[in-house]
Amino acid sequence: MLNNITHVRGFKCWGAHMGIKSKRRDIALIYSEEPASAASVFTQNVVRAEPVKLSREHITNGKAQAIICNSGNANACTGKEGWEGAVAMAETTAELLDVPVKEVLVASTGLIGEPFPTENVLDGIHECVEKLSDREMAGSLAANAILTTDTYAKEGFTSFEVDDTEINMAGIAKGSGMIHPNMGTMLGFITCDIAISPALLDEALREAADESFNMITVDGDTSTNDMAAVMCNGMAGNEEITEKDDRYELFLTHLKELCTHLAKLIVSDGEGSTKLIEYRVVNAQNDEDARQMVRTVSNSNLVKTAIFGSDPNWGRIIAAAGRAGVAFDPERVDLYIGSNPNKTVQILNQGQPVNERRSQLKKEMEASTITIIIDLNAGTGKGIGWGSDFSYEYVRINAEYTT
Amino acid sequence: MLNNITHVRGFKCWGAHMGIKSKRRDIALIYSEEPASAASVFTQNVVRAEPVKLSREHITNGKAQAIICNSGNANACTGKEGWEGAVAMAETTAELLDVPVKEVLVASTGLIGEPFPTENVLDGIHECVEKLSDREMAGSLAANAILTTDTYAKEGFTSFEVDDTEINMAGIAKGSGMIHPNMGTMLGFITCDIAISPALLDEALREAADESFNMITVDGDTSTNDMAAVMCNGMAGNEEITEKDDRYELFLTHLKELCTHLAKLIVSDGEGSTKLIEYRVVNAQNDEDARQMVRTVSNSNLVKTAIFGSDPNWGRIIAAAGRAGVAFDPERVDLYIGSNPNKTVQILNQGQPVNERRSQLKKEMEASTITIIIDLNAGTGKGIGWGSDFSYEYVRINAEYTT
Repeated sequence: MLNNITHVRGFKCWGAHMGIKSKRRDIALIYSEEPASAASVFTQNVVRAEPVKLSREHITNGKAQAIICNSGNANACTGKEGWEGAVAMAETTAELLDVPVKEVLVASTGLIGEPFPTENVLDGIHECVEKLSDREMAGSLAANAILTTDTYAKEGFTSFEVDDTEINMAGIAKGSGMIHPNMGTMLGFITCDIAISPALLDEALREAADESFNMITVDGDTSTNDMAAVMCNGMAGNEEITEKDDRYELFLTHLKELCTHLAKLIVSDGEGSTKLIEYRVVNAQNDEDARQMVRTVSNSNLVKTAIFGSDPNWGRIIAAAGRAGVAFDPERVDLYIGSNPNKTVQILNQGQPVNERRSQLKKEMEASTITIIIDLNAGTGKGIGWGSDFSYEYVRINAEYTT
Repeated sequence: MLNNITHVRGFKCWGAHMGIKSKRRDIALIYSEEPASAASVFTQNVVRAEPVKLSREHITNGKAQAIICNSGNANACTGKEGWEGAVAMAETTAELLDVPVKEVLVASTGLIGEPFPTENVLDGIHECVEKLSDREMAGSLAANAILTTDTYAKEGFTSFEVDDTEINMAGIAKGSGMIHPNMGTMLGFITCDIAISPALLDEALREAADESFNMITVDGDTSTNDMAAVMCNGMAGNEEITEKDDRYELFLTHLKELCTHLAKLIVSDGEGSTKLIEYRVVNAQNDEDARQMVRTVSNSNLVKTAIFGSDPNWGRIIAAAGRAGVAFDPERVDLYIGSNPNKTVQILNQGQPVNERRSQLKKEMEASTITIIIDLNAGTGKGIGWGSDFSYEYVRINAEYTT
């Protein structure tokens, strides 16, 4: 028994295989029987894929009833034909489901600059609509159909009570390469049966994404394509949330937890990743400083290769912190590293190396999950984020991607 | 016959081996018989190595007569003992050479956070002063003694005439890992026998570094240590340059050429580098935009792994350009790639893919030097920079560095 995105009232899914990718499913459809409040965040890249351009238009009314997504082709840098392909995806989905075209969100992921196989994709949409199902298997098929170099499907589910009503919330995600702070660079689709106003949903998604999807990194590149979207169809029957009351806070908490769960799965499955590292910057001047430093350190190739090699070369962490664009006093920094987040080894005390043997630290660094804590002793700001290490396998995957 | 830093009037050098590195020389001294106008640029990292802190103080009077440098230990994050070690390096050098301590610049490169082997280094300084020589071999020994993971010494020489006087200018550099735009992250020491005021020399070095050392990247990390310094001792006998006349422009042109030569050598020898890539962004709104885009694209792991694999995955170049923080219209971009800088293959025309076979492009990308041109068709700004590819070897070197 797996609770996933179809285990939310009124949502049906499918994932079809149309040969855009050689072996794996490549067209996913998520459909809500009722019109849903919807919100979406998109890549901040100046170069946007055609489906991103289209979905940015469609989301403006805060409503959606379907998400259609293909993998294997990014539909980016594809010119006029690409744009027409994205429009055709939305129109075909809308027509077959009998919903307004503006309530269809479109996503693509895969290779940039390849001609877009519109006919294949439209055939896949027909198959998906035909086979739409609320069985748990259907949710998993959709979760699989959005993958690219991911090695497994990423799913999550949570439930909680609002007004004595059970609320279900679930999500799927894909990541692997190009995962990076500042959004985008992954796909995440969340279904929920709560009733909430579009304006509040938009605010909640932005806040949740900032603390989850925007705080993970695999390789520092930001994609042209990626987006996270949430649909809340109100079928739980609660009174609609229209202000920031306790019910909103509860919803937000669960949305953050789900997004963080998906974000950590993405990092764990980063291209060539062998370890999951949690970075915490504490007692910074403010939260933004702390987050900025987390992003810079977690994205350092030198830090990541050291962690891959279980190399206790902690100076690289401090060097990366120093170039984060954050003002701080190196003479006040404490640094801790460890396999057990509650029992880390202190490396620096007020900027002075603690007499710690590298051999002991090396043992800590051999673990598959590692926590790194940088304490700036400057204020109350804090940030937390997750990153992968950097292995030979990353180079292999990315040197051989298209050919 | 090799013209190097000792082939400049009045300069003597040596490189000693004191066992900080197991096999290679690790203490370098460059000495000018006469007090010289001097300038230096330093890492922008907030965390500065002890020698950087000291040299920043010493350079304020615009004069120097010696540069002392050790490799194998960065003397960074080394606390009070590290600072005392850096001061002892300057004091010992000054005393043995009988020059003011403020006219000694100190540099270190190597592992961060290891106790600094002050006694060893001071012994090395004694040896260097004892053996100081103006033979070409002495310049090469110094060039070798500043290396870390570099696979060869980087030297350059140029000469030109000012006021019917022959001017000699030479330099040595080290790089390898951590090479990145925005200075630092390498060591470069330049000797010249021209007479020029300290203020103008400072301005010239900053401009030259901006177009050379600041436009190269190996892995995006910025070191705590690195610096470029130039000493001009006036022993050529020209009338001192004190304003931006033709003689200044000629000096600046040669300084830029020498710095660019050294910068390209550094990239060619980047850790695990197999190719040298020249990035040109042209017709940007302004030069700063163009340079920023060069830095972002040349620093993209996805671009670099694609080039390592000769993978014609050009979409990654456009995706990286799009996240450079530079506003531009993707519908106006032209993209060219090729092994011959004067005969590149057009990939995008006004944002539309040119019907170019990836197989043809793949052949171009198998070359050891590749030129990538991004034409934004938006203005007259331009930027040029150099980067390496990203290989398995990079990961190996950096996963195994300390242990």
